[in-house]
Amino acid sequence: MKLIRFGAEGSEKPGVLLSDGTRLDVSGLVAEYDEAFFAGDALADLTSKVAAQVDTLPKVEAAVRLGAPLARPSKIVCVGLNYAKHAAESGMDIPAEPVLFFKATSAIVGPNDDIVIPKGSEKTDWEVELAIVIGKKASYVDQADAMDHIAGYVLHNDVSERAFQLERSGQWVKGKSADTFAPIGPFIATRDEISDPGNLRLWLKVNGEMQQDSDTSDLIFDVPHLVSYISQYMTLLPGDIISTGTPFGVGMGLKPPTYLKDGDVVELGIDGLGTSVQKVKTYKK
Amino acid sequence: MKLIRFGAEGSEKPGVLLSDGTRLDVSGLVAEYDEAFFAGDALADLTSKVAAQVDTLPKVEAAVRLGAPLARPSKIVCVGLNYAKHAAESGMDIPAEPVLFFKATSAIVGPNDDIVIPKGSEKTDWEVELAIVIGKKASYVDQADAMDHIAGYVLHNDVSERAFQLERSGQWVKGKSADTFAPIGPFIATRDEISDPGNLRLWLKVNGEMQQDSDTSDLIFDVPHLVSYISQYMTLLPGDIISTGTPFGVGMGLKPPTYLKDGDVVELGIDGLGTSVQKVKTYKK
Repeated sequence: MKLIRFGAEGSEKPGVLLSDGTRLDVSGLVAEYDEAFFAGDALADLTSKVAAQVDTLPKVEAAVRLGAPLARPSKIVCVGLNYAKHAAESGMDIPAEPVLFFKATSAIVGPNDDIVIPKGSEKTDWEVELAIVIGKKASYVDQADAMDHIAGYVLHNDVSERAFQLERSGQWVKGKSADTFAPIGPFIATRDEISDPGNLRLWLKVNGEMQQDSDTSDLIFDVPHLVSYISQYMTLLPGDIISTGTPFGVGMGLKPPTYLKDGDVVELGIDGLGTSVQKVKTYKK
Repeated sequence: MKLIRFGAEGSEKPGVLLSDGTRLDVSGLVAEYDEAFFAGDALADLTSKVAAQVDTLPKVEAAVRLGAPLARPSKIVCVGLNYAKHAAESGMDIPAEPVLFFKATSAIVGPNDDIVIPKGSEKTDWEVELAIVIGKKASYVDQADAMDHIAGYVLHNDVSERAFQLERSGQWVKGKSADTFAPIGPFIATRDEISDPGNLRLWLKVNGEMQQDSDTSDLIFDVPHLVSYISQYMTLLPGDIISTGTPFGVGMGLKPPTYLKDGDVVELGIDGLGTSVQKVKTYKK
């Protein structure tokens, strides 16, 4: 199943995306894709109801905006330097253990919403990432059991301001949390749809030019490793997001470094998780 | 006004604490101390209703557990190295700008709940901190306007695992986010109750022995500076928490370094914000 949310910002409703591209409104079947939804049997229940009512559920027109495909989670845990070539282009060593940082959930926007360059920014950068959506509370989970705690996967652009992240007295969260810095979607593919999350092509273009083109098989720490590892340090709640890190090809690594500017268009995608496109705007009050 | 939440973990109700120590149940007047509550006029409305109904509102017995005095916020923003002597004891320089990191909101517990030492931990440490509760959405706020965005203040023990924080490949959030690592409360003192948040004694004892004893007048970056500064990097939502940093006297700075162990008792307090006490337990599945 592919879960979407649609409608104006702040009043999104839950829907599903069928394999032929039809979007159905399921707000009559489920209130929201939130912690309660992911924690319980609601996904299985929704799946069977959609199958039974596929011909009668209201359709959502293609012109309607997509929001992020889940309600604001308790946290977005990001993994740093999780592709060897990206660590090298960042001038950093390959970490011995996963590097973890957070991104403010207030940064979440829909997959095709604008990226707004924050006030004072000169180094706003892109990062295509495979993100995991937690389905079952995870605390001290073994790698062998980790996949049972995953509800699905989603495309994420981990937008990053490099000066805020690296030149402003410390801790990366400062450069990861501006409004619009987390375009998420177009949809959550439930776990059954992705046979191997460790074998997905992921790519990102800026103004039509390919900048990142890699594969999750290059992840240093793979999906079950990350879920298990993070669960040793904090409890992952249903609906929480783990963003697994970005591959080689960010703006900071170009010679010379090249960052986003007003009018740029960023397009990204992952096998089985669709594509998203964001226009870049300068902040205006 | 002093806001409390009371009852069993996960089913807390809102209440208020009167100056004579009486606790009143206000769950008939307000649903929850959450983003919607802090964003609107609900606090002013509650204040006048409590004044009018003080003799008829149901009382809460002293034996009833206190929870954290607010619902899970969208984020806990912590400030690092914000007292000069603490930066020195940590072996770090005084930062040129505030150091920011996050703490998982899943770490929040009531003020007198147990601190649970996580699996594999040998360096669980204490940190008394003045925390700010945001009352009005804050994005690009000037220092002169910052106080208008504050709902109140609360006592916070920013419990920290030093090996997880500093020795495990990076970003402090890893050592700040275990379950029970954020005892918050006993109450939120609304802004009108604290005439000067930059002039409050704060202290912490372990097993009756004073370890931290300082004053918020020693903050490098003061309360309005922090609200304004953080709002340049992310949007602060109503109910969000800013923890302003800890003074000199943590376990890591002792010679030899001394950390919490099963059976220890931690007690802390801030002028006008009450006291809390936590027993330390080892994690058991």
